[in-house]
Amino acid sequence: MRTERIHEDTIKAVFFDLFGTLLPLAPLDVACEAIAPGRGGELSKAWRARQLELSWLRTIMGTWVDFDEVTRDGLDAALDELDIAVGTDDRRRLAAAFQTLPLAAGAADVLAGLRAAGAQTGILTNAATGTLRAVAARTGLERLTDHLLSVDPVRAFKPHPSVYRLATDATGLPPASIGFVTGNGWDAAGAGAFGFRVTWLRAGPARIPRVGAPDPVAASWSSLPEVLLDVDARRVPRLG
Amino acid sequence: MRTERIHEDTIKAVFFDLFGTLLPLAPLDVACEAIAPGRGGELSKAWRARQLELSWLRTIMGTWVDFDEVTRDGLDAALDELDIAVGTDDRRRLAAAFQTLPLAAGAADVLAGLRAAGAQTGILTNAATGTLRAVAARTGLERLTDHLLSVDPVRAFKPHPSVYRLATDATGLPPASIGFVTGNGWDAAGAGAFGFRVTWLRAGPARIPRVGAPDPVAASWSSLPEVLLDVDARRVPRLG
Repeated sequence: MRTERIHEDTIKAVFFDLFGTLLPLAPLDVACEAIAPGRGGELSKAWRARQLELSWLRTIMGTWVDFDEVTRDGLDAALDELDIAVGTDDRRRLAAAFQTLPLAAGAADVLAGLRAAGAQTGILTNAATGTLRAVAARTGLERLTDHLLSVDPVRAFKPHPSVYRLATDATGLPPASIGFVTGNGWDAAGAGAFGFRVTWLRAGPARIPRVGAPDPVAASWSSLPEVLLDVDARRVPRLG
Repeated sequence: MRTERIHEDTIKAVFFDLFGTLLPLAPLDVACEAIAPGRGGELSKAWRARQLELSWLRTIMGTWVDFDEVTRDGLDAALDELDIAVGTDDRRRLAAAFQTLPLAAGAADVLAGLRAAGAQTGILTNAATGTLRAVAARTGLERLTDHLLSVDPVRAFKPHPSVYRLATDATGLPPASIGFVTGNGWDAAGAGAFGFRVTWLRAGPARIPRVGAPDPVAASWSSLPEVLLDVDARRVPRLG
């Protein structure tokens, strides 16, 4: 009995979100500040808000386009909303900032540790397939992951259940055997509602929206291995 | 040929959004200001943003609850985000402000004029059925409308196509024979993507999100009859 329960509860694979998780978004503030001096933080925040809003609206309406296009449209909307005038070249350069974000400190070690402990690792992201592959090659994530999953095949964005299903389909595992790590509260909620074991990399004043999902476990990159591995303290099952 | 085209293009029914359209939201600023002096506008804006965000996330995740609950949760999230402490009574009083919003000036005349011109009229809203009925009774809208449609039966929020379909189902009309009037840009986009003839009551700095929908016609309450009735000037067909 006990063996069977442990087996069922064991995390066999851990998927990570990309933007705002493996790739922290703080560098966008700097890129925005260079284009709009004195208003970088404000622009960066509005850009991300409009980007996500467009991704949700398009998912609900069934008018999906890939995340590169949503990101460009979100930037245009933010610049328009804040009445910031930017030339075409600067606009293109700024949109490209999402393509060049550096890997979070500590992330590579966590991924390597998970694989050493016997878990599959992967990325499950809104990012377009081409962007995901380019990021994975540039940052070395391609050598640390078994699965690189973009939402492109399902033509919907997170937190739609069809996106999270990409990970169960790719691994053949049930949701309860999959750990999911994200810095985005709404992504944590969506993944939790789908049935993943969610760890939330809480950053700043972000909150988990009240959308009917179980509370995720909170962690930082440094506490993540312990959280993922410590079944008793955190109720997140041991890897293996 | 010409007769047939005019017949097909004719608007036979006009549906109106409720919150932010028939009921302008500016009074929420005053209600918020009374609870959080000096921060009313900021709180009101955050409340509306969180309310809509929760409605979209729950629609995508399939964890629908009615709009009364989403409105209360949105208020809690906004108060939390802005670090504003409010007692239980004030919180309840504030949440109830959505139930007591006054009717837009000019709205009753427009609705009466549409019916006099032979069109059916209706409300198509995120609002919970009970709230919609109470608002319609209090404001007199129940005497000016043929259809009071809440999203409750489809358990999704705007801009999900199933919501707009409530109006085609209720009237038996195709989308192209239905006019839709809203003050919310994302609602204008959703209704336009569904195929309604959309008129956008533009207020303040709001924008139409770029989500793959046709551009709506812009109007004010005072110009609305002309816009809805003038086929040549605005490419919106004559009523009849």
